[in-house]
Amino acid sequence: METPPFLAACRRQPAPYTPVWLMRQAGRYLPEYRAIREKTGFLELCRTPDLAAQVTVDTAVRLRVDAAIIFADILLVLDPMGAGLEFARGDGPTIRHPVRTAADVDRLRDPEPGALEYVAEAVRRARGALPPAIPLIGFAGAPFTLASYLIEGGGSRLYARTKAFIATDPGAWRALMQKLARAVTAYLDAQVEAGADAVQLFDSWVGCLSPDDYRTHVLPHVRAVVGSVRRGTPVIHFGTGTAGLLEGMRAAGGDVIGLDWRVDLDAAWSRLGHDVAVQGNLDPVALLAPVAEIRRRAAAILGQAAGRPGHIFNLGHGVLPQTPVDHVHALVDAVHELSAR
Amino acid sequence: METPPFLAACRRQPAPYTPVWLMRQAGRYLPEYRAIREKTGFLELCRTPDLAAQVTVDTAVRLRVDAAIIFADILLVLDPMGAGLEFARGDGPTIRHPVRTAADVDRLRDPEPGALEYVAEAVRRARGALPPAIPLIGFAGAPFTLASYLIEGGGSRLYARTKAFIATDPGAWRALMQKLARAVTAYLDAQVEAGADAVQLFDSWVGCLSPDDYRTHVLPHVRAVVGSVRRGTPVIHFGTGTAGLLEGMRAAGGDVIGLDWRVDLDAAWSRLGHDVAVQGNLDPVALLAPVAEIRRRAAAILGQAAGRPGHIFNLGHGVLPQTPVDHVHALVDAVHELSAR
Repeated sequence: METPPFLAACRRQPAPYTPVWLMRQAGRYLPEYRAIREKTGFLELCRTPDLAAQVTVDTAVRLRVDAAIIFADILLVLDPMGAGLEFARGDGPTIRHPVRTAADVDRLRDPEPGALEYVAEAVRRARGALPPAIPLIGFAGAPFTLASYLIEGGGSRLYARTKAFIATDPGAWRALMQKLARAVTAYLDAQVEAGADAVQLFDSWVGCLSPDDYRTHVLPHVRAVVGSVRRGTPVIHFGTGTAGLLEGMRAAGGDVIGLDWRVDLDAAWSRLGHDVAVQGNLDPVALLAPVAEIRRRAAAILGQAAGRPGHIFNLGHGVLPQTPVDHVHALVDAVHELSAR
Repeated sequence: METPPFLAACRRQPAPYTPVWLMRQAGRYLPEYRAIREKTGFLELCRTPDLAAQVTVDTAVRLRVDAAIIFADILLVLDPMGAGLEFARGDGPTIRHPVRTAADVDRLRDPEPGALEYVAEAVRRARGALPPAIPLIGFAGAPFTLASYLIEGGGSRLYARTKAFIATDPGAWRALMQKLARAVTAYLDAQVEAGADAVQLFDSWVGCLSPDDYRTHVLPHVRAVVGSVRRGTPVIHFGTGTAGLLEGMRAAGGDVIGLDWRVDLDAAWSRLGHDVAVQGNLDPVALLAPVAEIRRRAAAILGQAAGRPGHIFNLGHGVLPQTPVDHVHALVDAVHELSAR
């Protein structure tokens, strides 16, 4: 079989067209997904392998995208660590036992082996059900983003507690990041073992940091995680608001660097170096625009990538719930058409 | 009289030490300010020239900073345009009559001459009361940031309505930006006329945009405003999350470009070119850290500026309400001490 375009792009090999998938492609904008969620809570869905696998596979096939991503959440790994992870209806995640002191860090457990077996099982079922030409992506939150949820107790705008923790007790911070890096490593390993063809590390909120804080307090821990992924499995290293952190993220590692829309793709790729692949970078809000405008913006991004092997088209962050489904189809078709070589 | 260090830095002339002031230096972290606000609403304070001038002057003198900034709000100019600007206690601003259509844009009025006379009067009184060595900064919101409040009806996280407006009706967007640019121009002109020694244009939320959208839909309007400020009055052009927009902001204009903490100051200055001054760029959250850590971080930023003329020390955004007052003093002292030449 020929290498699927997504995996070829991860390895910076030529592909017949630019592969495309969308973060949160299985999400609330899809009526089929909303129908499932009416009967099933979010965490329950994540924990039910046949349902999670079904959502994963059906979405990828229906959208004709070039990769599936296992249905799960970046925070799942925090649950077997004893954080008390909850998703209230309509709200973001909350952490029942926030981490505020060195003693709280000590109390966090290393997940038992097999604690997240339900995700591995979903990966196995999804991989079994997917057409061979569609690679399956496993994923996890990166240590900083996980730590920020643990410390803030949920989402945040300023990350004031997290940054104060770093500045006030750098030793406890290091211990926390090491513990998280270990847990994430084991979790990604289990997903690869179960059949994930690539993995994405979501450092979604790392863009709140100064480059200096990133280099000192984050980079070594990301490097430890990326370095431990089984050789040959591509790693996508993603964050948002990272226009000032690209060199640091590159140094931390990854075969593919995820870019958001707040950078020009060509300028960012030059800064990263062309010896790494890139993924991105359409503004998710652009999918609310008329289809002609969506096509124009897709063409502009493909123009910046200039047909260079190693570009995976994606949004700069997840699909928004208010996105019209036919706009998503239009984007996928536009990328395939406009990039056909 | 010698040129005050702040104005010298705006012009990239040598100064005996690096000048420092802080965005929102007169704010809720100060007990004196909270005492005044217990008796006076926010907009009422802005509209009472002797009180606004007093807050402006007392804060600058007390903090021993190198510039005062007139006590006002970036959104004041929207009020005489008929937007229905309100500040509810403890909440952010809200716009009673949001702009959602081309007809809404048409309905927005050009402010009557003198509509913001209370700000000009506060500038006159503050300038009269300030020591001659302390320059006074006037300011306004930049067209994009003002438009985003008008369209969203208040603050926003995604700016989805604003971006959809741009993509769906670029003609109405242009008309809106031109109207705002005219109003801002007249407003800044009135502040300079009244005695402001420099002005800052706050494009606080422009960092949500892609560089391409910035160049097409924002840059020409900022350029119109900056180009109309009276020659010889330094213009500081500020935004947050702008690590991907720096070249565009530079092209739009300003004698000084404001940087936030999410870029390395030295890398950002190189990208901008050393023929422009820079302002920044300590993370406001860093002021919650122990004083020794604040000093270390101030030293790191001064190190990146490398004593080059044309650096004004500031935070990357406004002082947070929970900031200890003595940490602010410690920062100002540290900048003066560590940069003394």
